[in-house]
Amino acid sequence: MATIFTKIIEGEIPCHKVAETEEHIAFLDINPIAEGHTLVVPKKEVDYFFDLPDKLMQRTMDFSRTIAHAIDEALDPLRTGVIIQGLEVPHAHVHLIPLYKTHQVMALGHNVEVSDERMKKLADQIGDEVKI
Amino acid sequence: MATIFTKIIEGEIPCHKVAETEEHIAFLDINPIAEGHTLVVPKKEVDYFFDLPDKLMQRTMDFSRTIAHAIDEALDPLRTGVIIQGLEVPHAHVHLIPLYKTHQVMALGHNVEVSDERMKKLADQIGDEVKI
Repeated sequence: MATIFTKIIEGEIPCHKVAETEEHIAFLDINPIAEGHTLVVPKKEVDYFFDLPDKLMQRTMDFSRTIAHAIDEALDPLRTGVIIQGLEVPHAHVHLIPLYKTHQVMALGHNVEVSDERMKKLADQIGDEVKI
Repeated sequence: MATIFTKIIEGEIPCHKVAETEEHIAFLDINPIAEGHTLVVPKKEVDYFFDLPDKLMQRTMDFSRTIAHAIDEALDPLRTGVIIQGLEVPHAHVHLIPLYKTHQVMALGHNVEVSDERMKKLADQIGDEVKI
């Protein structure tokens, strides 16, 4: 069965898309732990991040860097952090979390409220800074 | 001034070393959030992970994968997660966190007690499974 991410990639489920290439998609996490919290997902369905083929793992991190720099440009956090956890959805993905203050809690489930309208604006702002 | 990680690399500060190459070192985090919580550090001092030179970032992730697979072999967690946050020490590093149960909290600061003797054993167990 297709994962929820594959359904997003195929357009069956809507998302606030930030950027897309042939091999990857980046969109806002629907349960953000900070404004601008973005997921980077390789389109190939592989459950465990460290089981991604070598080159695909490298390209996933390269694409994550591109998106992280776009978040940094668009939202000016101290920096952008990374979480790879992935026990919820069996489809490898990288969480990019803008860190706005030194002691910000960076843990999945520690959600913040972001309106749908604000999500749309954030996705556009970040997307505008993506240099592919 | 040398970062605390450079002091560990240079042997001025002791650590529970898991593995070392010319370019990287892996050792147990002294404030573990799970048994076997390991840090991967490129020896080159760069503050922000996403500022690492392209190829060095790739090799850092490749080495992190090698260590993650060693953790998986040695300790048999569900999988090994990743945190890259790095606002404490201005020297890029990757946290590798064995996830032993589905709802384990994966957040820095959410420490568990691990005795020094147990740390030594964990470092040896993981180190024995590192295939470089």
